[in-house]
Amino acid sequence: MSPSPPAVAPDRTLGAALGFELLEVGPERATGRFAADDRVKQPLGLVHGGAFAAFAESLASVATYEAVASDGLIAVGLSNHTSFLRPIFAGIVRADGRRRHRGRTTWLWEIDFSDDEGNLCAVSRVTLAVRPAPGG
Amino acid sequence: MSPSPPAVAPDRTLGAALGFELLEVGPERATGRFAADDRVKQPLGLVHGGAFAAFAESLASVATYEAVASDGLIAVGLSNHTSFLRPIFAGIVRADGRRRHRGRTTWLWEIDFSDDEGNLCAVSRVTLAVRPAPGG
Amino acid sequence: MSPSPPAVAPDRTLGAALGFELLEVGPERATGRFAADDRVKQPLGLVHGGAFAAFAESLASVATYEAVASDGLIAVGLSNHTSFLRPIFAGIVRADGRRRHRGRTTWLWEIDFSDDEGNLCAVSRVTLAVRPAPGG
Amino acid sequence: MSPSPPAVAPDRTLGAALGFELLEVGPERATGRFAADDRVKQPLGLVHGGAFAAFAESLASVATYEAVASDGLIAVGLSNHTSFLRPIFAGIVRADGRRRHRGRTTWLWEIDFSDDEGNLCAVSRVTLAVRPAPGG
Repeated sequence: MSPSPPAVAPDRTLGAALGFELLEVGPERATGRFAADDRVKQPLGLVHGGAFAAFAESLASVATYEAVASDGLIAVGLSNHTSFLRPIFAGIVRADGRRRHRGRTTWLWEIDFSDDEGNLCAVSRVTLAVRPAPGG
Repeated sequence: MSPSPPAVAPDRTLGAALGFELLEVGPERATGRFAADDRVKQPLGLVHGGAFAAFAESLASVATYEAVASDGLIAVGLSNHTSFLRPIFAGIVRADGRRRHRGRTTWLWEIDFSDDEGNLCAVSRVTLAVRPAPGG
Repeated sequence: MSPSPPAVAPDRTLGAALGFELLEVGPERATGRFAADDRVKQPLGLVHGGAFAAFAESLASVATYEAVASDGLIAVGLSNHTSFLRPIFAGIVRADGRRRHRGRTTWLWEIDFSDDEGNLCAVSRVTLAVRPAPGG
Repeated sequence: MSPSPPAVAPDRTLGAALGFELLEVGPERATGRFAADDRVKQPLGLVHGGAFAAFAESLASVATYEAVASDGLIAVGLSNHTSFLRPIFAGIVRADGRRRHRGRTTWLWEIDFSDDEGNLCAVSRVTLAVRPAPGG
């Protein structure tokens, strides 16, 4: 679609800016976490809805990318739908992602977010397109 | 739902961490922008899908909050669905939000994102619950 | 919100028109099925995407309504997001719904659809508002 | 993806069962309507959420299909997200669809639904994949 943009050093990306940490990243399951620090909050002191959406996007994208890269394919986000069920004010936000679909052209993940007490706090559905790498 | 959490200083929030700038914030229309800097990108050099989702969430939340606060109400995000249409590698990302529904208990916004050439690059639908302020 | 509309006889509703059958309808789990007949198909011979969306809406609405009615509450659909993973041409479409959230004002269900071979063919997320019954 | 299923006669499809009527069907704009008859209602007497979702799916699918067929392509529904803003009990439901994105591999439509008074009652976002016709 365009000449390759310059890559961004891992410590300068959105994921680094928000303290995202990926733990397990597999083709069917992916998990991670981030601290409920000020930098992921909105002014009223609760975790920003966009932090859940962004984490889900990172988790699903990286997991899909790593699964398809050896076939000369890339993963491109198509959509992200995150529902917010319960606010988080402090502690660690845990994410648990399950791949629900592995098609030829699209993958779909569902990611659950929970707080330190194990309450379900948000759910995301992330859909990605899988395509040949440009110039691949 | 809980004792009031400590507020976060505006320069320490997610919006500050990602360089979000709100411009017009009204009850029917809300606009803003952010620079396509490294801190909103994913490692491959394009703007992270989560940056669009988070910006839409901020824009709709602040606009709704400001419209209902004088009635003793607050706005709480229910869901955020962002579709990614075209990647952005550089320049300024512009957001243009329209309120589509103002109900007694829910508000709904649609936000369009465009790049420096005016191409539509992402669309978000943000739904918020409007409720009495705790202790209000 | 308005004077009570006339109820519709069960054999004249959308669910009857499309052959929907609810099986288990509980507060945490709900299941059902419908035949892949012409009346749920689009012209090319596959099950219409709207049939999955409509079935999910019925299943989640009825299950929520039955769970809250004894408290003088009703359930009102807020949103339905259905993703289509694999076409169905024939046989029985099975739906398996799980309640993911039971809040004071919103409930959220996720519904999986599968074909006769057990393949996952569509997933729905249905969000409902729970409110006092009008005149209740 | 499979041998071609038998086509369904237009008067036997889901669209016929529910009384759907397409009016304008163009590559950028598509409109239609259906009557708020019993067959599109749920038992409480209001238009079933699935009727809005199904109509949006029909409208966007047909409009996209007609726009790409001459290039040997087909349109396949990827997802449908419909939000319900205001109930409809009677009259005609009008749908007004706008194509928001025409990509090489995906199209995206937004459809607004209104009642006889012109109130916005539901909004849908429909995403379709565009692919070479099987055997094309």
